[in-house]
Amino acid sequence: MKTIKVGIVGGTGYTGVELLRLLAAHPHVELVAITSRKEAGMPVAEMFPSLRRRVDLAFSDPAHADLTRCDVVFFATPHGVAMADARRLVDAGVRIIDLAADFRLRDLAEWKKWYKLDHAVPELNEEAVYGLPELYREAIRKARIVGNPGCYATAVQLGFLPLVEAGVVDTGHLIADAKSGVSGAGRKAEVGILFAEAGDNFKAYNVAGHRHVPEIEQSLSRAARGPVRVTFVPHLTPMIRGIHATLYARLTSEPDLQALYEQRYAEEPFVDVMPPGSTPDTRSVRAANVCRLAVHRPGGGDTVVVLSVIDNLTKGASGQAIQNMNIMLGLAERSGLETVPVVP
Amino acid sequence: MKTIKVGIVGGTGYTGVELLRLLAAHPHVELVAITSRKEAGMPVAEMFPSLRRRVDLAFSDPAHADLTRCDVVFFATPHGVAMADARRLVDAGVRIIDLAADFRLRDLAEWKKWYKLDHAVPELNEEAVYGLPELYREAIRKARIVGNPGCYATAVQLGFLPLVEAGVVDTGHLIADAKSGVSGAGRKAEVGILFAEAGDNFKAYNVAGHRHVPEIEQSLSRAARGPVRVTFVPHLTPMIRGIHATLYARLTSEPDLQALYEQRYAEEPFVDVMPPGSTPDTRSVRAANVCRLAVHRPGGGDTVVVLSVIDNLTKGASGQAIQNMNIMLGLAERSGLETVPVVP
Amino acid sequence: MKTIKVGIVGGTGYTGVELLRLLAAHPHVELVAITSRKEAGMPVAEMFPSLRRRVDLAFSDPAHADLTRCDVVFFATPHGVAMADARRLVDAGVRIIDLAADFRLRDLAEWKKWYKLDHAVPELNEEAVYGLPELYREAIRKARIVGNPGCYATAVQLGFLPLVEAGVVDTGHLIADAKSGVSGAGRKAEVGILFAEAGDNFKAYNVAGHRHVPEIEQSLSRAARGPVRVTFVPHLTPMIRGIHATLYARLTSEPDLQALYEQRYAEEPFVDVMPPGSTPDTRSVRAANVCRLAVHRPGGGDTVVVLSVIDNLTKGASGQAIQNMNIMLGLAERSGLETVPVVP
Amino acid sequence: MKTIKVGIVGGTGYTGVELLRLLAAHPHVELVAITSRKEAGMPVAEMFPSLRRRVDLAFSDPAHADLTRCDVVFFATPHGVAMADARRLVDAGVRIIDLAADFRLRDLAEWKKWYKLDHAVPELNEEAVYGLPELYREAIRKARIVGNPGCYATAVQLGFLPLVEAGVVDTGHLIADAKSGVSGAGRKAEVGILFAEAGDNFKAYNVAGHRHVPEIEQSLSRAARGPVRVTFVPHLTPMIRGIHATLYARLTSEPDLQALYEQRYAEEPFVDVMPPGSTPDTRSVRAANVCRLAVHRPGGGDTVVVLSVIDNLTKGASGQAIQNMNIMLGLAERSGLETVPVVP
Repeated sequence: MKTIKVGIVGGTGYTGVELLRLLAAHPHVELVAITSRKEAGMPVAEMFPSLRRRVDLAFSDPAHADLTRCDVVFFATPHGVAMADARRLVDAGVRIIDLAADFRLRDLAEWKKWYKLDHAVPELNEEAVYGLPELYREAIRKARIVGNPGCYATAVQLGFLPLVEAGVVDTGHLIADAKSGVSGAGRKAEVGILFAEAGDNFKAYNVAGHRHVPEIEQSLSRAARGPVRVTFVPHLTPMIRGIHATLYARLTSEPDLQALYEQRYAEEPFVDVMPPGSTPDTRSVRAANVCRLAVHRPGGGDTVVVLSVIDNLTKGASGQAIQNMNIMLGLAERSGLETVPVVP
Repeated sequence: MKTIKVGIVGGTGYTGVELLRLLAAHPHVELVAITSRKEAGMPVAEMFPSLRRRVDLAFSDPAHADLTRCDVVFFATPHGVAMADARRLVDAGVRIIDLAADFRLRDLAEWKKWYKLDHAVPELNEEAVYGLPELYREAIRKARIVGNPGCYATAVQLGFLPLVEAGVVDTGHLIADAKSGVSGAGRKAEVGILFAEAGDNFKAYNVAGHRHVPEIEQSLSRAARGPVRVTFVPHLTPMIRGIHATLYARLTSEPDLQALYEQRYAEEPFVDVMPPGSTPDTRSVRAANVCRLAVHRPGGGDTVVVLSVIDNLTKGASGQAIQNMNIMLGLAERSGLETVPVVP
Repeated sequence: MKTIKVGIVGGTGYTGVELLRLLAAHPHVELVAITSRKEAGMPVAEMFPSLRRRVDLAFSDPAHADLTRCDVVFFATPHGVAMADARRLVDAGVRIIDLAADFRLRDLAEWKKWYKLDHAVPELNEEAVYGLPELYREAIRKARIVGNPGCYATAVQLGFLPLVEAGVVDTGHLIADAKSGVSGAGRKAEVGILFAEAGDNFKAYNVAGHRHVPEIEQSLSRAARGPVRVTFVPHLTPMIRGIHATLYARLTSEPDLQALYEQRYAEEPFVDVMPPGSTPDTRSVRAANVCRLAVHRPGGGDTVVVLSVIDNLTKGASGQAIQNMNIMLGLAERSGLETVPVVP
Repeated sequence: MKTIKVGIVGGTGYTGVELLRLLAAHPHVELVAITSRKEAGMPVAEMFPSLRRRVDLAFSDPAHADLTRCDVVFFATPHGVAMADARRLVDAGVRIIDLAADFRLRDLAEWKKWYKLDHAVPELNEEAVYGLPELYREAIRKARIVGNPGCYATAVQLGFLPLVEAGVVDTGHLIADAKSGVSGAGRKAEVGILFAEAGDNFKAYNVAGHRHVPEIEQSLSRAARGPVRVTFVPHLTPMIRGIHATLYARLTSEPDLQALYEQRYAEEPFVDVMPPGSTPDTRSVRAANVCRLAVHRPGGGDTVVVLSVIDNLTKGASGQAIQNMNIMLGLAERSGLETVPVVP
């Protein structure tokens, strides 16, 4: 069986260490390089002792790391980094999977509005594929560049897709009330995500607008063949991992909702439609690459409620990135992603 | 200044110990008796060492406790208990504040549907007042029996009231996405609320229907002078205290939302309308009798989003009960309720 | 490669679901039966949705489950259960690994003192092996019955072993200050381990004596070739998984402590001696079968401090049980135990 | 009744907001000024919404705040700040209570060793009093400057004092195993205390030496009339507030331990000796100015175990500072400190 040479740019954040956790146990992967400007020279396992005896690499300086040896490079960096390196790597035949936002939006004016930068490689953005396998699997198979979806965006899209594809809800007024564990904010030294601030506490944020809204509306509009508008309110929850999206839509017809969801995802390896009446909890997907969904119609009224849970670092980021890698490089899609959720 | 003689029935749960915490520091209260069938004879401070040196009472057997000596009796019991004792106490001139649901609903058929019991004293239920001071303060002043609102119901009603009173939203399709700390589930030995189950985890529950919905719709319908329908989804959050209700409604006119909220609650001692753009967190009300509200209109669209936070045990239960006591017995409404929220 | 037929008795607790998590991914295991008196007939994945698509079994009634088909049976039950079934299974050629305490102590008078029962099968207890591979690997290889060590006992013994084996400390006055996550208390409906009780809280318990002390003293005394006395104080910590044992001993000679530890565990696959000055955290072993150790001598004085961390459910219970299975059945010791710790 | 004019220097950290929480409800205090270099001009209640309607002040620039108007000034700053301002304030007749370490140690060589600074005002340090009322109440009454004890130091000293004063233990080998909530690390943007790092995790730190050791040894040595040596290992616990110190000593005689503790603290308003066999939990002191103690002798051996719990921000910092203020200024010692611990 072939071995894939993998590089990681920016491995000191949570999506980086999650990539390392999963790739260290991937049967067909050889970790070739992991870069960090700040930590160059430090053994990875010194920063993350959980990786002792499992990852022997040290962080290398991005200026000196020869990533062109790799078959695929993951960018676990802030936005703006992947697009700066993309041309050189693509020309060297390296596949790129960006866990940040550089290759998520087709509309670069919209992209600039949210990310405050001019895009460095519009022509590569043009060919890049949005990495939601449940929607774009065939395109991902042939892609040179994949823009891995945002964590919230994954949970919200997988939850709404069957409804908007089937055309059974008012797509002008979708509501997504999403709750994320604190790791979603990244491994950054900020007061607001300290244990003594975010612990035993709950709050909404970015109510006026969040960067994941445009990618959600982009995919859903395409699936709906018409404009979709989502009111999206994210919340910070005192847990480490996990996203729970509670989705509300007004029905415009009378579908069999349970059947709709089961059929839509019947062949999907990483989407699990729960039995009627279920309330999936985030721990049921902890540390695993799976989205669990349940669909409800409270009181038989015209409001449908969808519950969608993922681990923000796995199906919401690094696990999905590896799923994309498997697809791009012709590996079994489940390869390296068979870990069982950790409960309790 | 007069001293109020207070009794508590069922003091071993979380609303009971919260009543004790607040009443122990109330300047005009004398604790006369606290009953518990199971724990009769045990000093209160043995079960709750936090009350050592502050509460000297022992639990007494409800069969022998002479509660007719009291000016007011709080029922911190499951539903069904207060209504069984109400006639005897009221006839003895004792005021009753029930923290459970026996006196919350006017419609006893609806009550029976949710609570699976015939009401023991329909005529007392008739005269009982729903204890939301921001809506029924004058009636509470004269009430012999107050049905203290549910915790979720308090957060949701205070959040929606200005909108439905002003008639500016579609009241047929309100959405309340509510998140509660685990103490809201009570001090009961149940697997689902163990630390190792509810910790680092997030889930919805009772999506098909929750007992707080009828009291919410009852008040809001009255305030709206017409039927109000609420889709209500409660969630369990890994924190101890606190409710965060995120409320969604579709605007039917163009009010100045901030002014609407500020005016509605201008005179309220325990409702705090935050400045525009705020995202109140639950810890900002921890252990204090206050509701903080913020009103948003994301993207200037026709969906209004209201954020409403309370401490489920204080403004959501025992603090509000004491607020009601203060009103009923002619004390200053703030009396004993001036504690500052505990942050961090 | 051969496939091991595995049965589990009592699979509804935390050690049970942890066994299932690990065995579901074990390359050489076939799960044959899992019993539960209470939940007979319920699909395992209905109780633990994290196991959906991974474990297809339903709980079976212990009275009807034919466990004699198994190569090995794990008992994830309270003490007293394994010893009742042991004779029948052993006679049928089935290996037994008891995660409870039935086969941990050689001295049955001591056993009765702590567990309040007469031992059912003293002759089998006589041949049973204490399942700490780092101490008894060869005996485990040939054992028909293994008494899997307690969680605290594992962390404390692995931490003290190099010191007592080398004879360099006062073994009459060892101190073990141990902190456990709440899952260590089991999946039992008890008030003291509710989220709202154990969360944001810290306390000692069983200061007068804990059942793990006799097995600790039994092993250490044997290793020391003389009586060892441990003052052991366990504490409940507001986390789900993990044990941190902080161990104190008075030096009686001047060994090179770091070298002592590194040499003792040089060949051990699941014990990791950290570099000098380290302070291992419990998450560095979360969900993985490893013990990390660091040895300190504060201020160069005569008190040695050892830090020992494990995941109480993995190296402290189910992971170690599988390690024992691998040894008993001639599999590679690491087989099925290669999962990387989950951080964050 | 007189009103005390109070100033706070550096009010943006956790000890600052805790001072504000307590002082806002103190019946004899007028808050005159609160300074912050960085946040000058910002209303205090904007940074801490929990103080809305309770604290009307804005942060003022330390350069312009006229603190000489105050009767007392609290320094809730890093070490080094209070000593720089002390001379000017003392000369103006202002009392100083430093919550940092500038006035804790008599031995300035030792101070320099731990804090890496030359002391700015050795003559004021000479007259300063260590603010542990249970040991130095009379001196505090007359002090112009009080060095408020460290949080760990408070819990450890109150726990050991009866033993060392009575001369019944080996004072050369005391062991203090201490566990702190994360707020003890301060409100600083550091990766190690992020929710996603410190949550669901437990670790020791500073095993080689911690700044609170010299003040502990200073007081205990004085109480013991001879040198005392403490092995002190602090740990970070995933809770917000609270310290649990587990203390170990070897008995050299046979005192009645329970009586010893009860007698020592019989008159103390804020030290609570629990009944024999108790295991105080940190939440039993949450947000309150009290230390609860329990004394054990496991197995009747020669090792005594003391459990000592405080809220690190209250009796461990700001509450104790206000207790010192009350003593210094002739107020009732309990004034403003009667809040009941918040449970759950």
